[in-house]
Amino acid sequence: MRDFAEIFDEIVREYGARGFLYPGAGGLPVLVGELRSYVSSDLGVSIRDHEDLVVVSGAQHGIKLLSQLLLGERDIVITEDPTFWEAIDPMRFQGARLIGIPVDEEGMDTSRLEDLLRKGVKPRLIYVIPTCHNPCGYVMSIDRRRHLLEIAEKYDLTILEDDPYRPIAQDPPPSLKSIDRDGRVIYVGSMSKVLAPGLRIGYVILDRVLAIELSKLEQHDFSTSTPMQLLVARALKKGLVRSLIPRLRRHYSEKIRILVESLEEHLPGSFTRARCGFFTIVRLGVDAEKHLPRAIASGVIYVPAKDFHIEKKPADTARISISMPSKEEIREGVERLASSIRG
Amino acid sequence: MRDFAEIFDEIVREYGARGFLYPGAGGLPVLVGELRSYVSSDLGVSIRDHEDLVVVSGAQHGIKLLSQLLLGERDIVITEDPTFWEAIDPMRFQGARLIGIPVDEEGMDTSRLEDLLRKGVKPRLIYVIPTCHNPCGYVMSIDRRRHLLEIAEKYDLTILEDDPYRPIAQDPPPSLKSIDRDGRVIYVGSMSKVLAPGLRIGYVILDRVLAIELSKLEQHDFSTSTPMQLLVARALKKGLVRSLIPRLRRHYSEKIRILVESLEEHLPGSFTRARCGFFTIVRLGVDAEKHLPRAIASGVIYVPAKDFHIEKKPADTARISISMPSKEEIREGVERLASSIRG
Repeated sequence: MRDFAEIFDEIVREYGARGFLYPGAGGLPVLVGELRSYVSSDLGVSIRDHEDLVVVSGAQHGIKLLSQLLLGERDIVITEDPTFWEAIDPMRFQGARLIGIPVDEEGMDTSRLEDLLRKGVKPRLIYVIPTCHNPCGYVMSIDRRRHLLEIAEKYDLTILEDDPYRPIAQDPPPSLKSIDRDGRVIYVGSMSKVLAPGLRIGYVILDRVLAIELSKLEQHDFSTSTPMQLLVARALKKGLVRSLIPRLRRHYSEKIRILVESLEEHLPGSFTRARCGFFTIVRLGVDAEKHLPRAIASGVIYVPAKDFHIEKKPADTARISISMPSKEEIREGVERLASSIRG
Repeated sequence: MRDFAEIFDEIVREYGARGFLYPGAGGLPVLVGELRSYVSSDLGVSIRDHEDLVVVSGAQHGIKLLSQLLLGERDIVITEDPTFWEAIDPMRFQGARLIGIPVDEEGMDTSRLEDLLRKGVKPRLIYVIPTCHNPCGYVMSIDRRRHLLEIAEKYDLTILEDDPYRPIAQDPPPSLKSIDRDGRVIYVGSMSKVLAPGLRIGYVILDRVLAIELSKLEQHDFSTSTPMQLLVARALKKGLVRSLIPRLRRHYSEKIRILVESLEEHLPGSFTRARCGFFTIVRLGVDAEKHLPRAIASGVIYVPAKDFHIEKKPADTARISISMPSKEEIREGVERLASSIRG
């Protein structure tokens, strides 16, 4: 945060009032340039010649704009089941119909996806969080990634890859975008996990023709603060982000390891074995909404996860987060959660 | 800008990481509180008991969200003609059909509006910029304001009042919102003109039931930066905004006076007699798009204004702005524009 204050001060001194003018559509060129180099060098995500990077106010804003751009009444979107409910809310608002495909420790069950497509289902979009899935914490295997891309080619599908956790994931597999051969993947990234979510800076990488449409649509809200764009550009340029990545990767992988160990000890067999990211899903065996006040009384909070589910909505699922609590608090929290359930 | 740097530093010291977390839906309570008091004490805009103030990423974002919330395919929106094209773009994106009503120095010709309604036209929304109209610079008279509200009551209409220039307008008339008796006016305001547009902070005042819907929809993008919200809250609390208002009112009313005088001298009879705000429309007598490169070559820039028009789209109209140029540059600019036309 001290670095932010220092950078903000530099921006005021160097840009003056120019640092506080309207942002142009699609992002300030200085930020677009820094993000392009960050994404390819630090995250290993390739940007092709026919693609552009568009700055948005966080990944969520990118997903909303893409929903507005791509989806209309009764369009079908296929997602992992469960999936991140905030991402699918704007899709539903556009009138899209969601179909969920089960996930396991290797990610979306692509053979189930193929079955559906064989039956003639024609989705407008496949929405996936293949790396550090929210809410399960899974990482899609390389084989499944390849299979998904094969299917996409065969059935002429567009994939929306939501990839906010890559900067904090220990040894993440290549993004779908990087192994895709024919430009079917729209990639959404974020600075929320590596810098801070309150800055509201994310980006979308997509085909240039679509990128122009997205930028036009972004002019309808023009919501990405100019000084925050300059701040992130400078944090990237100064190497602040690069120096954070290895620390954050160690930090969060240690926390996830502790979460899984604690769950194994206190609530064995009831949870998704998270590999990275912030979350895991736990089946409490009791109604998660109803139990919440008791959990809170014992000092634990979770998000009842019913709405993360697409097809069946089990009432006893809860999403647990490790983003804020310390390692000790994670251990303690799981223990308290388990004893609050036992009553 | 130095004040901004100082405030940012205070935020980092006082809030630490908490100042950079996700913004909640609808705005941080500290900013909502400061804005409520600013809007009522400094701008004289009343907020009723059944109404809420929702923070958005600039007025434009507010208008986009309201368009998503209120408008569907073939809904009719009645606007001033010309009007601000960026505001109506998201309305069109929702599938709305626009009908333009001519404006003059007293604002929208409300008798023409009444004629339309008498014929059975049923608009979903009346969109107006009654104070310092963009692009004409007009101020709607009190009589017309009353007439518009009467009509709204009679025909059960909702009015969207876009009012970003109030903080910089010398002696503005009361807002529609303040003289409306039965809660038909949704009010959109902005900190762009009084602080800086790059902060992307605006607000919408509307009925609580609708405000909850708007906040939910704002969660689809979550785009209003947390530190920028804290910065604006503190600028309000410290009285920075209050102290700026009289200076900005003098500053911009002087610039508008100079613009009108210069146009009277060099391009008489060809322009809208702006009272306040940033803009006036000038009829160049030549195609504004085609002439632009020549104007630029002579050191002047304007926005060809065809797309600000709804019904007829005169190709020779240009929007001139006084927001950036100095008084001297305004005089010089009008003179150069006039001679570039004379060739």
